[in-house]
Amino acid sequence: LLYRLVINPKQIDSNLIKLNDEQRHYLRRVVRLNDGDVFIAMDGMGNNWKVQLNMSNGLIVESLVENKELPIKISLMVALPKGNGFEDIVRCTTELGVHRIIPIISDRTLLKPSNNKLERWRKIVKEAAEQSERQIVPDIVSPLSVEEAFKSFEETNILKYIAFARSQTSHLQSYLEQDLSVCNPSDIVIATGCEGGWTEKELQIANQYKFQEVSLGKRILRAVTAPIMVMSVVASTLEVSIHTPLI
Amino acid sequence: LLYRLVINPKQIDSNLIKLNDEQRHYLRRVVRLNDGDVFIAMDGMGNNWKVQLNMSNGLIVESLVENKELPIKISLMVALPKGNGFEDIVRCTTELGVHRIIPIISDRTLLKPSNNKLERWRKIVKEAAEQSERQIVPDIVSPLSVEEAFKSFEETNILKYIAFARSQTSHLQSYLEQDLSVCNPSDIVIATGCEGGWTEKELQIANQYKFQEVSLGKRILRAVTAPIMVMSVVASTLEVSIHTPLI
Repeated sequence: LLYRLVINPKQIDSNLIKLNDEQRHYLRRVVRLNDGDVFIAMDGMGNNWKVQLNMSNGLIVESLVENKELPIKISLMVALPKGNGFEDIVRCTTELGVHRIIPIISDRTLLKPSNNKLERWRKIVKEAAEQSERQIVPDIVSPLSVEEAFKSFEETNILKYIAFARSQTSHLQSYLEQDLSVCNPSDIVIATGCEGGWTEKELQIANQYKFQEVSLGKRILRAVTAPIMVMSVVASTLEVSIHTPLI
Repeated sequence: LLYRLVINPKQIDSNLIKLNDEQRHYLRRVVRLNDGDVFIAMDGMGNNWKVQLNMSNGLIVESLVENKELPIKISLMVALPKGNGFEDIVRCTTELGVHRIIPIISDRTLLKPSNNKLERWRKIVKEAAEQSERQIVPDIVSPLSVEEAFKSFEETNILKYIAFARSQTSHLQSYLEQDLSVCNPSDIVIATGCEGGWTEKELQIANQYKFQEVSLGKRILRAVTAPIMVMSVVASTLEVSIHTPLI
């Protein structure tokens, strides 16, 4: 079982990966690798290599062809919950295969995140991508307003859903299975609200940008649980209904 | 939107609910109800009432007929993870509709939980059941060994799965959809491991008690994420494939 390390593509010089101090410390002191031991380096954009630790650098042994990502790119638009709940969302949904996370400042969002927060979330994403053996590192964009976020998905070949508690609409999984049986989207985006849910005005904006209202079941989920549940359901529905070759 | 309060059936005296000090404090000081305001009392076993606050007691106004529980009872057997991760598991899976949680001391479990822990988990379950508008309060049993836990599901009309990372087996959702199309189980039980996964010996015991090995997808989930993902997938598959009347 090989340890995964996210590197910057600029660190590659022909068949050498020039490790920085932090990476060297991590590989030698924390993971306890020695010269000659191998690990997996990933550039976060889908390219992975088997690499041998060699003095202060890594020697690329071979390029890896893996297939661990979902067949369709999943974006989550998540209204920021209070407290540190967003960290759990970021960690768990990265493990579950999210492609992009879009933090949203909604009408009922109390948290106004600092730049430090964004840096911290990106660090968590990187660690979670390494640990869960992803091939890519999901992207977290800077927080957007509700309108900016909905507007950024105007292309046509995208399935767009908004989760809404106490809704009379059908379940996300029903819509997903039905929609996937008739179209072949490039992306799927799902929006989940914060404590207190979406305001009437926000639902109108979602409707204007053609986001389909969906239910997440009969029980009421916290703002932290909803995106994790959404990502679980979407990932397993995709893995079960769209068969890609295992490599 | 009414506040939910879990009560002990012994507190009911004909059409009165005799509130204790803690409940009175909560309703009046925290939720800020006044005499005449209504809330929902639940006995945790499926009986719910609309109740009016009346001096130091609650006056039962009507018995509620709701249908928010899953059509099949779901038990999760969860090998205890390190740290406080089990609290997140308990909170999230209660929101998602679990019926019973069975903490397991597996070969690789580091945590030996005290009785205080069990009390704390039960408090979290109660709060999560109130907040997520459950009709029942899920049960958390005292921690069991792997063999005791597997052995406790010997009846025949139960679907039994064990999640196993890096497994070549099919996905939980595939097995579930297929099994539900040919049988009508009373219960479903799913086991998830702790950090490091199940040992060879534990998998043999699971096999002996007819637990089917299942995959949770191509990525590696943490011990905290796995049961939350499992409960998300099982709940939505049940809600989509088994239609019960909405009341």
